This record gives sequence, C-alpha cells and structure tokens, in this order.
Amino acid sequence: MKLAAKILDIADRGVLLNQVDARNIGVVEGDRLQVMNHANARTVSAHIDTTRTMIEEGTVGIYGLTNRALSVVEGAEVEVWQAAKPASLEFIKKKMNNLRLTRDETRTIVNDIVNDNLSLPELSAYVTANYINGMDMDEVEHLTLAMVETGSQLKFSNRPIVDKHSIGGVPGNKISLLVVPIIAASGLKIPKTSSRAITGAAGTADLMEVLAPVEFSAEEVQTMTEKVGGVIVWGGATNIAPADDRIIVVEYPFKIDARGQMLASVMAKKFAVGANLVVIDIPVGRTTKIADVAEGRKLAREFIDLGERLKMRVECAITYGDAPVGHTIGPALEVQEALAVLEGAAEPQSLIQKSLSLAGIAFEMAGKAPRGQGYQMAEELLRSGKALEKFRQIIEVQGGDPTVTAASIQLGAHTHMVNAPDSGYVVELNNHSLVSLARLAGAPQDHGAGILLHAKPGERVDKGQPIFTIYADRGWRLKLAIEEGRRLMPVLVEGMLLDRVPTEYRL
Amino acid sequence: MKLAAKILDIADRGVLLNQVDARNIGVVEGDRLQVMNHANARTVSAHIDTTRTMIEEGTVGIYGLTNRALSVVEGAEVEVWQAAKPASLEFIKKKMNNLRLTRDETRTIVNDIVNDNLSLPELSAYVTANYINGMDMDEVEHLTLAMVETGSQLKFSNRPIVDKHSIGGVPGNKISLLVVPIIAASGLKIPKTSSRAITGAAGTADLMEVLAPVEFSAEEVQTMTEKVGGVIVWGGATNIAPADDRIIVVEYPFKIDARGQMLASVMAKKFAVGANLVVIDIPVGRTTKIADVAEGRKLAREFIDLGERLKMRVECAITYGDAPVGHTIGPALEVQEALAVLEGAAEPQSLIQKSLSLAGIAFEMAGKAPRGQGYQMAEELLRSGKALEKFRQIIEVQGGDPTVTAASIQLGAHTHMVNAPDSGYVVELNNHSLVSLARLAGAPQDHGAGILLHAKPGERVDKGQPIFTIYADRGWRLKLAIEEGRRLMPVLVEGMLLDRVPTEYRL
Repeated sequence: MKLAAKILDIADRGVLLNQVDARNIGVVEGDRLQVMNHANARTVSAHIDTTRTMIEEGTVGIYGLTNRALSVVEGAEVEVWQAAKPASLEFIKKKMNNLRLTRDETRTIVNDIVNDNLSLPELSAYVTANYINGMDMDEVEHLTLAMVETGSQLKFSNRPIVDKHSIGGVPGNKISLLVVPIIAASGLKIPKTSSRAITGAAGTADLMEVLAPVEFSAEEVQTMTEKVGGVIVWGGATNIAPADDRIIVVEYPFKIDARGQMLASVMAKKFAVGANLVVIDIPVGRTTKIADVAEGRKLAREFIDLGERLKMRVECAITYGDAPVGHTIGPALEVQEALAVLEGAAEPQSLIQKSLSLAGIAFEMAGKAPRGQGYQMAEELLRSGKALEKFRQIIEVQGGDPTVTAASIQLGAHTHMVNAPDSGYVVELNNHSLVSLARLAGAPQDHGAGILLHAKPGERVDKGQPIFTIYADRGWRLKLAIEEGRRLMPVLVEGMLLDRVPTEYRL
Repeated sequence: MKLAAKILDIADRGVLLNQVDARNIGVVEGDRLQVMNHANARTVSAHIDTTRTMIEEGTVGIYGLTNRALSVVEGAEVEVWQAAKPASLEFIKKKMNNLRLTRDETRTIVNDIVNDNLSLPELSAYVTANYINGMDMDEVEHLTLAMVETGSQLKFSNRPIVDKHSIGGVPGNKISLLVVPIIAASGLKIPKTSSRAITGAAGTADLMEVLAPVEFSAEEVQTMTEKVGGVIVWGGATNIAPADDRIIVVEYPFKIDARGQMLASVMAKKFAVGANLVVIDIPVGRTTKIADVAEGRKLAREFIDLGERLKMRVECAITYGDAPVGHTIGPALEVQEALAVLEGAAEPQSLIQKSLSLAGIAFEMAGKAPRGQGYQMAEELLRSGKALEKFRQIIEVQGGDPTVTAASIQLGAHTHMVNAPDSGYVVELNNHSLVSLARLAGAPQDHGAGILLHAKPGERVDKGQPIFTIYADRGWRLKLAIEEGRRLMPVLVEGMLLDRVPTEYRL
C-alpha cells in the first residue's frame, strides 16, 4: 500500500497508522510495519501504533528515530506492508532452549538488531536468554565479529593502534583523560571511543564534552587520530558496533551484563577501531561488576583468550574499586581534577598511580619501554608537560579551546558542604549513594553538578569538619540532593568505639 | 511537577513530554513517568517519549491506553514525577538467576504487570526467565492466585460452577458453541470467558461475536449467567486475570507458552469466575502445543494437581489434534457449522463427538449423570433441541438476535474453490497453512472470511474434485489468499503409488 509520509517529532521508533489503513493492511497495534522510501530505496521496519484521528487515511506518521534510518521527507510517498517475522526469532528461541548458535545465526540476530527488525521485547528475550544460558567462546567470537561487521570500522595504515577500556563500576574514574594524552604523547596512536553515563554520574564522553565536542563519524575519528595521535569521542555517534547501544537499553533495568555479551561488546569496539594492543582495567570491589580478585583474573583470561582469537594482544589490570578514583564525581569536577594533574598537581595519588600504571602497560606491550619501565616512562611524559601539550592538541582537533586550564573550568554555582556529624574515621564511601547524589544534583546532563570528597576511607575527621561538598548548576537540584543526601548516607563516619581498632577499618 | 494533560489518540501506552520539561524532571526518552490524576487520585506509570514541537512546555501528552487507566480529561492538571524503579525488577532478576520466588515476590511482579509499572522489555525478561528456568508447583500456585487477585472475580451464591477450556492449537475448534449451551441446558452454570484469535483464524470470542456482543464487565457476566445459566464472552473485556493479556503480548513473537505460566493463566481464569468443576481439552498433534499422548497425560496431571491446591475438581480430555475440528475455519463459517449441529445436522462427526464428550465429562463430574452416562445425557440435550433453545437464550441475553439460524449466517461474498490437482488420497491437512490462508483471506477481523474443507484426511478425491473453498469479505483479500494458497499447499493429496498402502496413511 502507498501512503503519504508525515514526520512526527517524537523521539522514539515507530509508525502511526489510521485504523482504517491498519485494517486494510491487515495489522493491529503492536505489529510491525515495513516502510520503504522510494527516493533512496531504504527500508525499515517499525512498531505500529494506531489512531482514529491523529493521522488521516492515506497517511502514515513516522516517528523521529525511525525516520533517522529512513530519511523520508514530509509528504513523500512511501510503500508499506506488514513486516515478515524476522528470521532471528527462531534463533533467539534456539538460545532460549539452551542450544549453541552458529556464526550465521548470530550474524542474523545482530543484523536484525542493528536494522531495527527486532522489537525491544524480542531483544530483551535474546539478552535474557544469553544471560541465563550463557555463550561459549566460539559464540562470543561470532558475536564480536557480527557487532564489528554491522558498524563502521577504522582502517589505519600503520600499526600498532592502542586502546584502553575500563569495565566500569567505579565513580570518578576519569583516568582516560590522562591515559589517552600520555599514550598519544609517546607517538602511539589511541582512537578512544567512550560512553556517556547511563546509570553513572559521568561517562568519559560526558567528561570530554566539558572541553570539546565529542560527536564524530568513524572517518573523522580516524583523520583526527592520524593528525594528533589520539581522540576521546562518544562511541554512540560513530556507528562503531552500534548493536551494543540497543542491547544496553534492555540490560539497563536489571543491571545485568551477561559475561559473553560484555566481552563481545568491549572487544568489538576495540577491533572496529583497528586496535591491536589493548589494556583492560578491571576494577574489583563490592559495588563494581567484579566482586573479588579471583573473578577478576578469570575475566582477564577470557579477554586475553578472545583477543588471541581476534589477533589482538590484550593485557588486563585488576584495580581497586571500593572507593572513587580521586576526589571528584561529576563532569566539570572530574575534568578540573584531571587537568590539574596534567598541569603538575601531585595529588590525588589514586588517580595518578592508576593512570600511569595503565599507560605503562601499553608502553611495555608496544615495546616502547622494557618490562617494568612503562610506569616511569608514563610518569616522565606526565611530569614533563608533554601529556598536557598533547591533551591540548586533542582538545583543539575536536574543536574545543586548547587554552583551557583547571582553574578556568566552570563548576556548579550552587554548593552545599556536608560536615562530619561526629568525630571518627571515614570507614566507608558508598559508591552507589555517591552516584545517586551526583545524579540528583544534575549529573551528567548538568556539567557543573557533582560531589567533591574532602575525606577518603581511613582518614580521621573531627566533628563539624567538611566531609564532602555537593555542586549543582540549578538551585532546586541542589535542594533535591541535600534532602536525599540525608537518607543516602554516602560517607560513613564511625565514632570513638571503632577508634580503638582502626587498622581493621583502614581500606 | 504539574502539567496540563493533552489526550493523544494513539492506541498505545505512553506519555509524550516536551524535551524542556523532560530535562527539568530529569528524565530522558525510554524512562518511565509517574502520572497522577488529582480528580480521581489514580496513578499510572508510563514509558516516556519526548518531542521538541508536538507537545508544548507545561503540557504532557497521554496516549490512549495509558489514559484508559488514568481517566484524565483534556486540559486537566496532572502531577508528574520520575517513576521509581519497580520492586519487581529485583525479583525478575532473581528468577533470571534461577532462584525460587516467594508468594509475595510473585504477587509484586503480577501487581506491577497489571498496573503497567513494567515496560514490555522488562516483562519479556520475566517471561523468558520463567520459560528457561521454569517454576515449581508452589510458584505456579502463587502465580495463579496473584493473577486472580489482581483482577475482577465472580462470586456465585450457589455451586457447582462449571468451566471448560481448550489449550488450543487446533483450527476450527468451535466446540464451545455446543458445549456451553448443552451444559447450561442441564441446569448447570457455565460463565465461559474466551479469547480472540492472536495467531489463529478465530478464537471462541471471535465466533460468538458473529451472533452477539461479547464485551461485558465481570458483574454483567455474573448477572447474565445467573439469568440463563451460561454466557460466551470475551475475557479481555472482563478484567478477569488481566495480567495474562499483557504476558501473551510478549510470548507471541516466539510462540512460547511456558508450562507454569500456561497452567497459571488457564486456572486463574477458571478460579476467578468461581468455577469448581473444570474440564480441560488437551489436543495432541504435530501442530498443537502437545506433541504426544504421554506429554498430554503429564500436563493433565499438572492441571489436576494445581486444581487440588485451589480446591477445584479438574478432569482433562486428551483429544485428537492433527486435523481441524469439523469442516470450517473462520468466524462465520464456524458459527454456521455449529448452529447447524444445534439445529439437528448429523454431521460433522468430529465436532459432535468432541462436544458431547466434553459436556459429558462435566455432567459426570457434577453428578448429573452416572459414570459412563454423561455422553448420552449430552446427546439427549442436543437432539431434543434443548441445547439450541438454551443457545438462543444466551444469544439474547448478550444482546444478539435469538432468531438466528445456520442458513441466515452471512458468509464471505468472494469465494474461490480449489480442486484436487490429481486423483488420490488426502494424506495431510496442514493446520498452520490452513490458518495462514484463512488469515490472509481476512479472518478473524473479517467475519465472513475462512476456509471450508470438502475433504478430510483419509478420503479419496478424484482429479478436479473440490478439496476446499476460500471465503473472503473483500475481493483483494481473496486474491491474496489464492496467490499464497498455491505456495502454502494446505491440503496434500498423494497419487496412486500411495494408494497401494492406504491404511498407513489413514489418520
């Protein structure tokens, strides 16, 4: 059936049909419609909503995200028909029945994910089945390659290409802002794609956006990397391994991250940017994805195994994840802290040591430094100011202001300092509560919002001494965070009784 | 935040926010919004879409299905805030991790399903986890009771109340149109709620709708049953065990029907109408849900076990499911066939025998007939015309025309007869293909559409002799069915070679 397109400014996927047309096509709401744009021969399938009045007969309403793929202009004629059942459904059911999927079956599923042929409930069934029944390493390899093939890829003429990834779960983990310029300052190339926070207070892309634009195509990422040695961009805009962006949406409510899927998603992004030397940061702690060192080592071996299958060298760093990295949580605060280190600050040690360690591993893998000497090489690049100079080049090539300094970063104008209710030791920082508080204050959307910690675990504080400050761009956001902050108790200070056995509580 | 409501005529669940308001609330598209109607204190949560232009600041668009629960009037003020994470997510994750759920956990999940607090992808994860990890009989009992408690219930002052259910998979299974009036004609009460076809050609509710309205509240169902002894209504309108309607939506793409969920959904509907004597029809065949008799017996024992826990007596009939019941598939055709039997037709035997057997079981369970005599009692009620008289009362009480006859039923005006391509035996009727064909012709929405079979398995046909006729209400639908009919081959006729060993192919 031919219908006239009406573009609906609704930021979702879907089409809206008049109920008379729906009946004539033989579909009901919840079914899927195939829509073809004759002008460019593109075809997409989309969830059907129906209406009696909002769309007249002979017209089809097309929601914004669906038209992003279709690119039809208002009023143009489109051809529509009931979408056939995607072949993937059979393969997803196979996985639900705990059978192994072949390479072709996995490729079909990933293709249907990327081309929007699967509804979110269908995708959720796939993700749930993978979570429950798991994948063997062959299946993980197939999934990785399918994710790579269904997106853009960088093709550098010279290797090595370095990449770095943290599997997350630690607030304030701004180390990429140091690791990337340190590695690029050595002459190695590092085209770093990163994520925005979904449940966190600030992803690396949210941080970099304080300093420069982060949305670039894969081609632009390649060109900029060839020019200055590194970039820090938002992966979501590059079309690199785009299947992952959709998978994350259905994983998010359950905070699940099926092991095989996580391996595939991380390694697909690294493979697609052409990286052949990869450093993986695996934070271990009560609130991270990995509870103990033994589990961290197991995951590390899986990353290394998958890397070998893909002809990539992988090394993993098991890192401390029970407390935030540095003293800041939230975009502008974290950027300020990282810039200060690049400018020569001797603190915070947790941030500096972690960044230098990871950069050092990359130098040793690349043969830039002998085993055991990578850390010193990274330290030298930081101390000499070469990393700062490189970071300024990166900011500039991405379209930001290279003269930026830590002092010039704009923090939230509304602040509230929280003081210790009693004298004692800081026995615990609750990562979840800290992140919740930063988000209530407006992070990551409000760049100036976040938390500045004045005391870290094991430190002694006196009654009335500041323990943290909440920053917000907007007054009502600050109010919200203060109210909730009382309930959330993100920093636990214990009194004199515990003072008698402090070493047991030193973390 | 307070916003003015704008009702959007979109047959879906959801709200549409201006992006400025969304940012102020702190939500993005895909999050969920809690909306409160001050006028009636009702609160619902709904999926958020965002727009820059379609909804202005200070206003929230409310989609049709969401407003069905909220009942807000155009322009009225509503209070909105970001919906808290439903408690169910934790319990669904527990089931994903293959742990047993408690009664309270199951109740919380079912409450969230009914109150729309779970998104479809979240619900899909629950259904998938139940499918993969299964439920024990305690969990099934809890799920059944939770489904009952979250919907309307009938409370008859006198027992027994009879009910009947077929677990489906056989086309043309119009037996409820005979079983219900036969049982009601005996003086027993049978408040039959039934479904519309989702993947089939006609559900019992689609059939009854040819004769009378089928959408009633639970109260109306009770009143009508007390008046004439029985009804045949659409369960979806009654608010009886409404959780099931949402679960079906996410099961549908995969054609899964997790065992425990199926048991719970069937028995919840029976329990909620007050039934304490239940006959379950379990068709066994290549294209039904149950592949062989042993599996059918196992399922029967589970139904009986669950019934005992709920203080309901259950008997099951394992029935033949490899071919359609009777000769017709599609609403009007099936109604005509059933009415003809009530009016005295001696054919088709498959329909008559199955209906009398099931009614007979109910009579024996209720003590209306001695063991072994139920069938004869049912036959007497059919042959005497008492069942027809009762059916006319049922049609009348539901608001239909009680003078209707088989001859007066309007069939599709567009027909096409398909003849045997060769002489031979009908060795197979493909249930799936027959249903697809009937649906292509317009069933179940077009009441006159369907298939009339002239030959059934084991019958000999000569070349050129009619084997089936396609009916359609609309010409282009008939054309579609004819074109596809060639490919679907719903009736397989084999030639002379097979003629030598016909008994092996007689089904």
